[in-house]
Amino acid sequence: MFISKLFFPVLRDVSADAKLKSHQLMLKSGMIRQSTAGIYSWLPLGLKILKKITKIVCEEQDKIGAQEMLMPTIQSADIWKESGRYNDYGEEMLRIKDRQGRELLYGPTNEELITEIFRDNVKSYKSLPLILYHVQWKFRDEIRPRFGVMRCREFLMKDAYSFDLTKEDAIKSYNKMFLAYLRTFHRLELKALPLKASSGPIGGDSSHEFIILTDSGESQVYLDKALLDINIEKYDDSETSINAMVADYSKFYSATDEKYSKDEFESKVKKSDQVVTKGIEVGHIFYFGDKYSKPLKANILGKDGKNINSQMGSYGIGVSRLVAAVIEAKYNNNIMKWPLAIAPFEVAIIPLNNKSDPKSLDKGKKIYNELKANGIDVILDDTEESPASKFKNFELIGVPFQIIIGSKSVDDQFEFKELNGITENLSVSEIIIKIKKLKG
Amino acid sequence: MFISKLFFPVLRDVSADAKLKSHQLMLKSGMIRQSTAGIYSWLPLGLKILKKITKIVCEEQDKIGAQEMLMPTIQSADIWKESGRYNDYGEEMLRIKDRQGRELLYGPTNEELITEIFRDNVKSYKSLPLILYHVQWKFRDEIRPRFGVMRCREFLMKDAYSFDLTKEDAIKSYNKMFLAYLRTFHRLELKALPLKASSGPIGGDSSHEFIILTDSGESQVYLDKALLDINIEKYDDSETSINAMVADYSKFYSATDEKYSKDEFESKVKKSDQVVTKGIEVGHIFYFGDKYSKPLKANILGKDGKNINSQMGSYGIGVSRLVAAVIEAKYNNNIMKWPLAIAPFEVAIIPLNNKSDPKSLDKGKKIYNELKANGIDVILDDTEESPASKFKNFELIGVPFQIIIGSKSVDDQFEFKELNGITENLSVSEIIIKIKKLKG
Repeated sequence: MFISKLFFPVLRDVSADAKLKSHQLMLKSGMIRQSTAGIYSWLPLGLKILKKITKIVCEEQDKIGAQEMLMPTIQSADIWKESGRYNDYGEEMLRIKDRQGRELLYGPTNEELITEIFRDNVKSYKSLPLILYHVQWKFRDEIRPRFGVMRCREFLMKDAYSFDLTKEDAIKSYNKMFLAYLRTFHRLELKALPLKASSGPIGGDSSHEFIILTDSGESQVYLDKALLDINIEKYDDSETSINAMVADYSKFYSATDEKYSKDEFESKVKKSDQVVTKGIEVGHIFYFGDKYSKPLKANILGKDGKNINSQMGSYGIGVSRLVAAVIEAKYNNNIMKWPLAIAPFEVAIIPLNNKSDPKSLDKGKKIYNELKANGIDVILDDTEESPASKFKNFELIGVPFQIIIGSKSVDDQFEFKELNGITENLSVSEIIIKIKKLKG
Repeated sequence: MFISKLFFPVLRDVSADAKLKSHQLMLKSGMIRQSTAGIYSWLPLGLKILKKITKIVCEEQDKIGAQEMLMPTIQSADIWKESGRYNDYGEEMLRIKDRQGRELLYGPTNEELITEIFRDNVKSYKSLPLILYHVQWKFRDEIRPRFGVMRCREFLMKDAYSFDLTKEDAIKSYNKMFLAYLRTFHRLELKALPLKASSGPIGGDSSHEFIILTDSGESQVYLDKALLDINIEKYDDSETSINAMVADYSKFYSATDEKYSKDEFESKVKKSDQVVTKGIEVGHIFYFGDKYSKPLKANILGKDGKNINSQMGSYGIGVSRLVAAVIEAKYNNNIMKWPLAIAPFEVAIIPLNNKSDPKSLDKGKKIYNELKANGIDVILDDTEESPASKFKNFELIGVPFQIIIGSKSVDDQFEFKELNGITENLSVSEIIIKIKKLKG
């Protein structure tokens, strides 16, 4: 992409309502625009990041054998009446009547709909275990939407649902998802902690929230600092390894506000290991047995020939919220540097003086084509703006690496700069090797 | 993917309501399930095809310089009041009130919202031309939803919007999109004809529908058969070539029902060249000048320093409908064969007698891994079902190529069968070369 072609409306000032740095940056860099309270359009830069995050989320779901499908945004109220949640859900549910007067709603979550699909299409224990997921827009009619896409009304969620024959099997699915979640956040270069949580309106017996620790978070969290040192890369996909992982995380105290007990915290965690901080919830997983399969009569034939209700769990990741969460975690020194895996572009080529030295733009285009041919996602600054203004734009966009074509470029060596990092003089082929290696 | 793991609920019988073969096949093969009138869930098989089609649609948009973004599904009624369409749109618009009593709606199309984004973010002619697009779910509250995803209420649409300084430039954008559409349908192996059409509720001065000719279509179409012989591959991206293409298509008579004039048809087309048939509308493009930019006051600074309204066009493709349209066009001899570019899997490996000959499954797995390693999207039938039942399933799924491991496999030669085509004996490496070549 040439930056002159990119629809990238920069705002120098944003409204005072935008309090979080993620909200400010997303507006300033032209990633999003609000269309009405709590409802946003994603402009090209924002969408590109959102799609890269979505891809990683999906890949980690696929790896544990979850299958992608897609449920609609609009649901019938009937199934919510069957589960008993239609009245319980309250005003956050966007209720709709169609032209025939039928009661519909914009799905805030999908336990009912997936259970209905399971009920109508799965008849025997032989089809289990089954994990289905989708990435779809949800709507929750927040009374006071705020913080940009962090607490908005229309938001993108990955929600997965597991179906198992026994509680024991269901816990295995739960633990697999636990691993998938930690790996997902790890790939986003986020330190996400699984904390025991209350189940809220989803209900159920067991539940963990995944929290990114940052001062700007809304959730209060209490934990043993040993949790921060667990290295997720050491666990593999075997049942033994997954069990070890859950055991390691369970060994140490962690809780959100709702589950927090002062006495327990004090007695279980040494004073010097106590961490009390804030965080952003980016994922939530639940095991809830037959809470939905029973009222919705999602029976299957068990091994003994008798009908039983399957054991279910559900697993959410706030995909659109993650974009803001990454900014909260990574924005530093007034500069945004996106993790390479989800950066809107991997490398920026910046000829400093296009106006006075037209050859530098030609050089830039040549490097651009070489990087492209090597599968590198690259943006070229082909404008005649001043060097200062160019750097300012790229500090907003947050491309992690820059190739600067200026007075310091000698022959085929260029300044190769890592945002918030060091600058080296490298040839184009050295740069390509380096980027490819970093991409893994 | 191993077929035993695929969530793929086959239906042997479907309801009598499913009249179109696409609707029947999508239900039978477990591609979709209706959740409520005109609202569907896409199961893994259906979603995979939908995503592959979406990818092709997006690639052709990107090639002409259109930029992807994403507008929300829920819009404020306010902008529709500004454009004057809020009352005009009628009962097909799903109108919603939120908890604060604010009037919202589920977007049936996005001219208003994109014009608002343009108004707020583009100030000068220097930012033009600009083409933005998104692929997003839309809702039209059809009075009688039918034909599965062909005429449903919640559907996936790619809609693009162009902004230009002059009418002349706007026609250039229109013509580029004309080419992108023909290329898109060509890659889906569909013969789509651009027909002059009336503009309907979008409004405007110029409009073409893109129609797939098939007897099961809802639209009546009239055309000169010379149109069927135009080869889209001969045009390149240059302005000259694009103009030649539009001229070629305009030379011959074509019209939908609304634009049809008997006198004109009879006088312009020789009796022997007259084609009167039915078709499925899969795309629609409009040039409508300042129809939205004027009431919404989307002014930009012109070259002479004066404010002017930009010249706009809009361009839709029914992405979810395309899945059904491909089936209508390709279903033959009771067998579905997906075009390779959008097939749910490119190759199926079918060991015929897993039960009596366990080694055949091992062989199948070995081939599976080889194909995977070569980037081929492959499915392995690891069930113990009878050969007849296996073939029946694959005739539903529509994988275009099969590797059959049975009595006719000698040494390292396997039966390699094209659905509805010939069977050869080939080695795995010959098969890999063949598939790669076909994928281009």
